[in-house]
Amino acid sequence: VGGAYSSSSSTTSTKLTSDASKVVSRGTGLTKALIGQKNNFTLDCSKAGTNMLMVGVHGPSAPCEEVFVKHMGNKLYNVTYIVKEKGSYTIIVKWGDDNVPGSPFKVAAP
Amino acid sequence: VGGAYSSSSSTTSTKLTSDASKVVSRGTGLTKALIGQKNNFTLDCSKAGTNMLMVGVHGPSAPCEEVFVKHMGNKLYNVTYIVKEKGSYTIIVKWGDDNVPGSPFKVAAP
Repeated sequence: VGGAYSSSSSTTSTKLTSDASKVVSRGTGLTKALIGQKNNFTLDCSKAGTNMLMVGVHGPSAPCEEVFVKHMGNKLYNVTYIVKEKGSYTIIVKWGDDNVPGSPFKVAAP
Repeated sequence: VGGAYSSSSSTTSTKLTSDASKVVSRGTGLTKALIGQKNNFTLDCSKAGTNMLMVGVHGPSAPCEEVFVKHMGNKLYNVTYIVKEKGSYTIIVKWGDDNVPGSPFKVAAP
């Protein structure tokens, strides 16, 4: 009867209408990162129901400098990130609790 | 012996050195959001081991307009987000797979 219970039942109904496998990701930023520059990719979640987008980027020895997620409307998102070290990065994209197709992405910063 | 197995064992070792309960969150942006303005909070993950920070913001009927995560060094992060609708927002902050203390945060945009 408390707030926690209504919150958890709303989470359940959200999951029922969410399908992370329907998220479509595109962009060179998913395979290659240029140091000190804005690297980009897009995520089209329009067919994936209702959920929350979570994006994380981590590098060889330190977190990514900056990650910027912008909603362009209609559940299309543009993601920009900046790295400052050479090496191999991991990008995780989740729609709610579930990885989208291809995630975790392995990105090289040569 | 394949790539998938080494990847999963490295995830396990990451979890062993990670403790989401040690992440400290601060800032008015965790309780109140002003429409069309930059709302802020900080996350101090310096005592929480090694993992990836994931931040998601969702509103009453649509995703958050913009979420910007900036690493300030030493696993201190500054998060800025912009909303454009009145209502109740949910902010989820995860350190790896685990919610940090207080997450999900319920934020009012009056």
